[in-house]
Amino acid sequence: MTELLGGIEAGGTKFVCAIGTSDGQVLREVRFPTTTPDETIGRALEFFAAETAGGKSISALGVAAFGPVDPHPGSPTYGFITTTPKPGWAQTDFLGRLRREISVPMAFDTDVNAAALGEGRWGAARGLTTFVYLTIGTGIGGGVIAEGHLLHGLIHPEIGHMRLDHDWRRDPFPGTCPYHGDCMEGLACGPAIAERWGQGGQHLPPDHPAWELEAGYLAQALQSLACILSPQRIIMGGGVMDKPGLLSRVREKTLAYLNGYVQHPAVLEEIDSYIVRPGLGSQAGVLGAIALAETAIQRA
Amino acid sequence: MTELLGGIEAGGTKFVCAIGTSDGQVLREVRFPTTTPDETIGRALEFFAAETAGGKSISALGVAAFGPVDPHPGSPTYGFITTTPKPGWAQTDFLGRLRREISVPMAFDTDVNAAALGEGRWGAARGLTTFVYLTIGTGIGGGVIAEGHLLHGLIHPEIGHMRLDHDWRRDPFPGTCPYHGDCMEGLACGPAIAERWGQGGQHLPPDHPAWELEAGYLAQALQSLACILSPQRIIMGGGVMDKPGLLSRVREKTLAYLNGYVQHPAVLEEIDSYIVRPGLGSQAGVLGAIALAETAIQRA
Repeated sequence: MTELLGGIEAGGTKFVCAIGTSDGQVLREVRFPTTTPDETIGRALEFFAAETAGGKSISALGVAAFGPVDPHPGSPTYGFITTTPKPGWAQTDFLGRLRREISVPMAFDTDVNAAALGEGRWGAARGLTTFVYLTIGTGIGGGVIAEGHLLHGLIHPEIGHMRLDHDWRRDPFPGTCPYHGDCMEGLACGPAIAERWGQGGQHLPPDHPAWELEAGYLAQALQSLACILSPQRIIMGGGVMDKPGLLSRVREKTLAYLNGYVQHPAVLEEIDSYIVRPGLGSQAGVLGAIALAETAIQRA
Repeated sequence: MTELLGGIEAGGTKFVCAIGTSDGQVLREVRFPTTTPDETIGRALEFFAAETAGGKSISALGVAAFGPVDPHPGSPTYGFITTTPKPGWAQTDFLGRLRREISVPMAFDTDVNAAALGEGRWGAARGLTTFVYLTIGTGIGGGVIAEGHLLHGLIHPEIGHMRLDHDWRRDPFPGTCPYHGDCMEGLACGPAIAERWGQGGQHLPPDHPAWELEAGYLAQALQSLACILSPQRIIMGGGVMDKPGLLSRVREKTLAYLNGYVQHPAVLEEIDSYIVRPGLGSQAGVLGAIALAETAIQRA
């Protein structure tokens, strides 16, 4: 019998809970809004309890959470959502609550690290050992697999907060980041586009100057990521990337910024498979959580 | 009897060859200028042949080379210095030449990755699993250990070529990088300081405005590195960092740029041990090569 794996994609606005298999199939799934920790984690527990009663008992559970989180097993706050500004959620012992009710091996990480893991397992980065998963949406985040390992380091990457070159004459918008103003997220996330141009990106046509500027900022970030992480591939998820034409502009500008410096055919000759969309589409998050569940079994 | 390890620090201007031990002691060392590949690699071979004749036979050899290099065992050009502009050295089969004359396990990597490895083994990053070694000198480079593994990815990191925020009104200097103009290296390497101010950094007093600007650029880079790699420590080597007062300015400005975002006591409360000088000083390079030799034994 195929082993069943549970996954929770805990986003800031919605939760997705699912049961799937190690070949990347999702068998059952439920989605509900993120409210208080008590209520939302409670609904997740109800889902798994009902599935278990229905004969679908999971062997492991992966939790992919909005951050910042503590992803370090062994730390006293492992499995906590830590300093989030989201009301009610700061210092939430997310994993502890789950462990009191479900007795299977569990793994806990950021939503973007989990998405990277899932893309490496079943999606756009199969077979690769070093790559980045970016999401460009309400915020900007990134997960990193480095030499086959999820990158945590001191805490975990916060890729959206790198510096970019901000030409104030061309773009006087000061950025939306409450910490850094014009870091990558401050200049290029969805709300930054909306504030700068007075309307959301979904209403701006593909030939609007917003997209030339956006592609330039994202390409700058990709130059830095290519030089710092030396990834074999960069995956660009998130709602902002759905804009027709944006991905190809980003590819073109990244090549222009790198200017031949990274002399590898993967970059110079195959940019369309170096900078790509997620292979798992809207399931990247929850399949990432299921991929985390697999790592919990391997570790147990 | 203690096992002897050989190391070659192959720099663009000088070679250092040494024999040492796995406790990080250098027993014998020779230095000579980098001329042609034939002559320079020949002198390295002569050193090890003479030491072997004198009873000091090495069990493994590590080679830490200026780059770009191919550090991927299994690749047809593993152990080559690849696309360097240095006359005569492009596409040099460095490791192949050594292997024809010396029959011990060998490992080959960039000078900065080796230095990172050495600092992790015996220097400023002992016990850490994720950290960066930067060198700020004639060029700017960096080596990365990520979750206990040397980071190579597609090729290897080229940290000096990340983007910074360049305020042209404050600093109209266009940068020295032939590929990117005002990337990190273009704005902040030793020759950039010399060209911008009309004299080398060694002649500019510690209160010269050059250092305020330099510290700002380096701190921007450290903000991006902290957010992308989530390192447990950042080690800053290279001649430019010898300027009195520069390191403390970099620490101060990095804290200001991060602005409390990376909420970990290692950053918020212990910046003096988060951003540090190399623990191995001028031996970081050759001890890095010796640390590489150790990895060759483990792999053999």
